[in-house]
Amino acid sequence: MRIVIDAIGTDNRPAPDVEGAILAAKEWKNTVILVGPEAVIKKELAKHNTQNLPIEIVNADDIIEMTDKPADALRDKPNSSMHIGLNLVKDGSADAFVTMGNTGAAHAIAMLSTLKRIQGVKRPALSIIYPIYGKPVIVLDIGANTDSKPEWLAQFAIMGSAYAQNALGINKPRIALMSNGEEETKGTPLLQEANAILHQLPLNYIGYIEPPDMHNNVADVVVTDGFIGNIMLKTFEATTRYMVNIIRDQLKSTWRSKIGAALSRPAFGRVRKLIDPAEIGGAPLLGVNGVVIIGHGNSDAKAVKNAIYQAQQAVLGNVIQTIKADIANMPIGSNADGTPEK
Amino acid sequence: MRIVIDAIGTDNRPAPDVEGAILAAKEWKNTVILVGPEAVIKKELAKHNTQNLPIEIVNADDIIEMTDKPADALRDKPNSSMHIGLNLVKDGSADAFVTMGNTGAAHAIAMLSTLKRIQGVKRPALSIIYPIYGKPVIVLDIGANTDSKPEWLAQFAIMGSAYAQNALGINKPRIALMSNGEEETKGTPLLQEANAILHQLPLNYIGYIEPPDMHNNVADVVVTDGFIGNIMLKTFEATTRYMVNIIRDQLKSTWRSKIGAALSRPAFGRVRKLIDPAEIGGAPLLGVNGVVIIGHGNSDAKAVKNAIYQAQQAVLGNVIQTIKADIANMPIGSNADGTPEK
Repeated sequence: MRIVIDAIGTDNRPAPDVEGAILAAKEWKNTVILVGPEAVIKKELAKHNTQNLPIEIVNADDIIEMTDKPADALRDKPNSSMHIGLNLVKDGSADAFVTMGNTGAAHAIAMLSTLKRIQGVKRPALSIIYPIYGKPVIVLDIGANTDSKPEWLAQFAIMGSAYAQNALGINKPRIALMSNGEEETKGTPLLQEANAILHQLPLNYIGYIEPPDMHNNVADVVVTDGFIGNIMLKTFEATTRYMVNIIRDQLKSTWRSKIGAALSRPAFGRVRKLIDPAEIGGAPLLGVNGVVIIGHGNSDAKAVKNAIYQAQQAVLGNVIQTIKADIANMPIGSNADGTPEK
Repeated sequence: MRIVIDAIGTDNRPAPDVEGAILAAKEWKNTVILVGPEAVIKKELAKHNTQNLPIEIVNADDIIEMTDKPADALRDKPNSSMHIGLNLVKDGSADAFVTMGNTGAAHAIAMLSTLKRIQGVKRPALSIIYPIYGKPVIVLDIGANTDSKPEWLAQFAIMGSAYAQNALGINKPRIALMSNGEEETKGTPLLQEANAILHQLPLNYIGYIEPPDMHNNVADVVVTDGFIGNIMLKTFEATTRYMVNIIRDQLKSTWRSKIGAALSRPAFGRVRKLIDPAEIGGAPLLGVNGVVIIGHGNSDAKAVKNAIYQAQQAVLGNVIQTIKADIANMPIGSNADGTPEK
């Protein structure tokens, strides 16, 4: 297997990106292809012992910044690590692409100029995988689209289910729609229509859930509109950060609690590991015609390595072939002559 | 001042409701009027020393359950504590109504059969007041409406601003729209239209914020559609609970951390106080023609007392008069002849 890694994706590039690739190559022996400015990559690799590791370099001179607008990166930086890396997957020279860089740019470049979308997919979806009490829960869409249509949400469910089953190894993944209540009378008109479609599909659809249910591991795949998913994700992250901040402030405020905190440090280390997105590393962009895993810009080498693991699992699980088949077998919304709507 | 308290609102009614009313009567000397089944209230009051306290009882035989559908409670229980208590405010016998009961029922009964909406208000909004690092931030709507219109959001901003200024004592409250990014190009069509309206109004409008900004105290009033507000609120609550759970589990898991946790207990007590909704007690239903404060069903006596404090501050601050004037002075959406849209 050959996995492309964007060498200049993270906020601290290229160090975590390159080290993560080295760790992955050591552990799993698959070929890792680092894409980015060749001199930068070589200089970074020289800091490590990479003898006999299956590491290749592909040069890409244009550098996409986190602040670049997706449309600008797409148009003005055709020799970026994303353009060149994604084209390696498109032309069959590699099996998957992993980046910790600008999410919007990766989405635009994958969708519009390289891999393009899988036939029949109305909209691709960005996902995140939460480790909830150590178990993965995939949530999509978290921001590729706003103002979704019911058919898009239904397809997110199909794609999320395929990923959960084939890449995360969850048998018959439980799929839920995120709503403001569990009763069928709840939800917006969008959700009510999506709910009706999902009840018709051959998926393990369990209906509406509310945010607390997600933390109780009642669903494996949580489907939502990209705007709401984005607000949820940011609320979750902001709240965990807020909790950590106020707990730290209070523990520091007296000598007694300072000693308590010192004794509790290993326990807090385990807490951090339980909520750490680096434990998962990255999550797929679903609906494009190839495996694309996107991680956080603030990823460390461990997170990059784990994102590469996600990519490998998606390749091994034939996620793209499964999505193609499932989308073809579950046409949603059709033209007057019965052919699937384009 | 005369404040009506629903005696049978909380999950553990009537104990916290009645004790909270007694605590408030003791501290602030305003008359508290307990509404509910008279025998139940008298039995509960007899457990306390209430001599010389300004406490009155008004009988109301129908009992609204947390599981009642709002429309059923509205129609089938005309002698409920909510109907009778809200009518006391409507006919001028009392200044405010406080309940920890069924939020949907309180909303429906206030809007449709008792207080009704303030003239010119398109939709009322449910709010919540978060204590963020100890400072109040009011978020609305958190569930009275789904599929809002831009004009509704603009009015939520007007009402939230009046409440923050006059009841919470925040000078020139900073108002923000919750969005998926701070740039003006972000947001759904709904938000973009609401953003355009808000820029025209004489409010201290600061534009879009994202969830992490809320935790950084950049805004005092956060405006959102009820569906999204509801998801945000539940995600916040679920995440704090999740964090507390995993921290507790990890602290219990070794002897060393158990000792650390014992030493840190006072610090965790302070953390709990910082995030405890009971510190605020309740939040207003805005847009109805009278002060209505609604709290959590799981409130304790302290939360009930603090909700009564919220009600008193709203009365003292002339919140209803201010909202009436502000809504009249800032017409949003108008008929062809220039008169404000009804």
